[in-house]
Amino acid sequence: MDLAIVDTTLITFQGEGLGVIEKGGLGIMGNEIAFVGKSDDLRGADEVIDGSGCVTMPGLIDSHAHTWLALLKGGAQDMPEIQWMKKGLEPFVNHMNKKDRIAGSKLGVLEGLRTGTTTFCEFSPEVKGYVENVYLPFGVRTVAVETLNEVVGVDARGLYELDRSIGEEGLKKADALVDEYKRSEMVYPGYGPQALDMVTIELLEEVKENAWDSKSDIHMHVAQGERERLQVEKRYGARTVKIMYDMGMLDEKLVAVHCHDTEIEEKGMLVENGVRMVGCPSSIGMIDGIVPPIHDLLSMGGEVGVGTDQAPGPGGHNMFKEMRNAALLTKIRDKDPTRLPSGDVLKLATIGGARTLGIQHLVGSLEVGKLADIITIDMLCANLTPSVFEPFHNFVATLVHSSTGKEVRDVIINGKEVMRKGEFVKIDEGHIIKDAQGRGKDLFKRGAKDWKDADGSLVKTNF
Amino acid sequence: MDLAIVDTTLITFQGEGLGVIEKGGLGIMGNEIAFVGKSDDLRGADEVIDGSGCVTMPGLIDSHAHTWLALLKGGAQDMPEIQWMKKGLEPFVNHMNKKDRIAGSKLGVLEGLRTGTTTFCEFSPEVKGYVENVYLPFGVRTVAVETLNEVVGVDARGLYELDRSIGEEGLKKADALVDEYKRSEMVYPGYGPQALDMVTIELLEEVKENAWDSKSDIHMHVAQGERERLQVEKRYGARTVKIMYDMGMLDEKLVAVHCHDTEIEEKGMLVENGVRMVGCPSSIGMIDGIVPPIHDLLSMGGEVGVGTDQAPGPGGHNMFKEMRNAALLTKIRDKDPTRLPSGDVLKLATIGGARTLGIQHLVGSLEVGKLADIITIDMLCANLTPSVFEPFHNFVATLVHSSTGKEVRDVIINGKEVMRKGEFVKIDEGHIIKDAQGRGKDLFKRGAKDWKDADGSLVKTNF
Repeated sequence: MDLAIVDTTLITFQGEGLGVIEKGGLGIMGNEIAFVGKSDDLRGADEVIDGSGCVTMPGLIDSHAHTWLALLKGGAQDMPEIQWMKKGLEPFVNHMNKKDRIAGSKLGVLEGLRTGTTTFCEFSPEVKGYVENVYLPFGVRTVAVETLNEVVGVDARGLYELDRSIGEEGLKKADALVDEYKRSEMVYPGYGPQALDMVTIELLEEVKENAWDSKSDIHMHVAQGERERLQVEKRYGARTVKIMYDMGMLDEKLVAVHCHDTEIEEKGMLVENGVRMVGCPSSIGMIDGIVPPIHDLLSMGGEVGVGTDQAPGPGGHNMFKEMRNAALLTKIRDKDPTRLPSGDVLKLATIGGARTLGIQHLVGSLEVGKLADIITIDMLCANLTPSVFEPFHNFVATLVHSSTGKEVRDVIINGKEVMRKGEFVKIDEGHIIKDAQGRGKDLFKRGAKDWKDADGSLVKTNF
Repeated sequence: MDLAIVDTTLITFQGEGLGVIEKGGLGIMGNEIAFVGKSDDLRGADEVIDGSGCVTMPGLIDSHAHTWLALLKGGAQDMPEIQWMKKGLEPFVNHMNKKDRIAGSKLGVLEGLRTGTTTFCEFSPEVKGYVENVYLPFGVRTVAVETLNEVVGVDARGLYELDRSIGEEGLKKADALVDEYKRSEMVYPGYGPQALDMVTIELLEEVKENAWDSKSDIHMHVAQGERERLQVEKRYGARTVKIMYDMGMLDEKLVAVHCHDTEIEEKGMLVENGVRMVGCPSSIGMIDGIVPPIHDLLSMGGEVGVGTDQAPGPGGHNMFKEMRNAALLTKIRDKDPTRLPSGDVLKLATIGGARTLGIQHLVGSLEVGKLADIITIDMLCANLTPSVFEPFHNFVATLVHSSTGKEVRDVIINGKEVMRKGEFVKIDEGHIIKDAQGRGKDLFKRGAKDWKDADGSLVKTNF
């Protein structure tokens, strides 16, 4: 073995239940997991990590994120949903240059890494820039989705004005991305039409064909609220799910994000047709006051992952927070404390996320032959003590509800140590934070006038 | 000055808004705050803490906690509310000895300290044990409330059987506590009738009188749900708030905890009569799926604090998590993302908490003459970057929504450094965690048979 983690509590997500192994050991050869079992049966490794007092489990999978917005965190909270984008974010976003976006993405990915995320589904325009400047240099796995959006304005009828040429340009980028990374081990490219109200049917038809040809997935915000619904009903006289069904887009190639503006029959249509779903509870809770239908789709037998979405609403990219919020918000929505129990929630962020992103053969569980994306979590801290095995594994619940995410000690991605004992091995964290702090300060200043002119509710705030 | 924090961002909670001071300085003499202002105007101190890159603010106030239950964390989540106490907690609680309870309390207080809590309102039976073995040795401020509960069983009518003699014994302990600590600087004693269904009217009358005589507060769970309501209606033919009003107990001496089972008129009665309220959003959300009426009472002009309550439901005693959940859960309950904005939430955990506990003349804001309970928070980490002052203070939002609580760097209580650069100065954290881990493991084992026999829903869990 090249690397071994010994004397640890494994949560493998294999076999019955969660596949917990007490006094477990995990061996890595190259970039693959080569041993999973009892620590005593694991012999010889070039490097040995003492995993005692730790839980060792698959790295977390953030199934939907626009990380570049992390440079605007704290910038648009507590606003009416209708103002959030136009009066909250846009006055600052319009002043962002490419370096600002990269700096934001680095912040977001660093936060995720420190809290155990090893795969991000990055859904952004010009996503290649983040792949090349953030994910590959950091050594972080990514499902890289090129956002496609044709909106140029609003026409006299109040409909978004769409421009096919922008879509074509975006599609070229997406095709090139897919072509470049289709054999990559670290980057899984995909197509990302923003939403049914923001692209033309013509573009969607092309996306469908190109995704089919290249065996890629289509990620798309689906039924994400009133604004989309009104646009779509006005333009097409029907609802999003029905239109996409008629187009033949509801199939196992589609990863549908959000889905909260759906009737029960529409949820059924998504699940029956093999559509995978991503819920972003912190984000949609903060900016809309709405809880995504994670429980509903799961209980219908659907495949579901969770994502952090964006930082300026929910606050950041911490998947431990996301797990907790998935559970807590669902319990509250349904006034039922039994909903989304901890074991199910841990799966949403690991093997469930992998299935949702179509990479379950590669990551998401501890299994010999899978790629070695592993995290250890220090359980010997006040907020995670005690950890017990009898009469049941209480640490499954404490990982979800008592952790802050900062108890993550080691992060291994593709067999390589990215974080060791809470310190990044190669990433210059201090430099990245300093750069982002300078850029953030400057960006908020540059956007200040536009922000004041937009006159959103935060302008009158008392802080 | 004995101690100074320089070049820092102060959130003082004095004056307009939140009283933010850029490039601020704070001076401490003995156990009091002696200077609050611009760092440049602060001269000479025996010890100087560099506060650059940090926010410096009042320590957080956890307005309601039963910390000893922290030894059972992860032990009773995802259960139906009706099972939670009897089939979840009690099988283990019945096996706890005094040392287990102290160990649990130490865990809970350590978690709170590390995440910036400097005052706990501890609401527990035999609370003096926690004062003497946890709070005073740790140097942590406490509002110590002796729980009074007269329940001995359930009678033929399904009503709790109450035993006056237990109440009398508890009351003696409470009186002695009040007497012993009435002049203490670190301990503020109070009376804690558990709830209207769990004590006799006779005991409440005595408590009212003794609290009046000793100028102490009465803390009480009020209108905490269906079970209380059914008991109270059966026994007295009326609802909790009405009965307490008729008894003359709704006044400025009462701190009413939870209050979620109240009609709008009852909420009005609480506020109009000067009753202070504590909401515990994480706890009540997790075990009941209900959001406490924090926003409602605040908007009526009531005084409100927030508390972590207990660990086995919500997961622990982290007030940053509590602040975030207060906001997020309220936004979701009301489908309104503008509810409980970040600035208001920060107040709930500082000056609002102090007012709720009746110690606002001593702590809760940075003000010359107040006791020096101070925390610094390292903002130069990925999840809290950037921090900006223009066009508004985005860090007010990031403190609430982006922090994990583990960014707290320094904790000063009563002028003494309790935690410095993330390390406890005197508290032997490693020893406490090791002891609690051993005790927890053993306790869960001792309770295993009773837990299985109780046959709660977790027994059939898959982990």
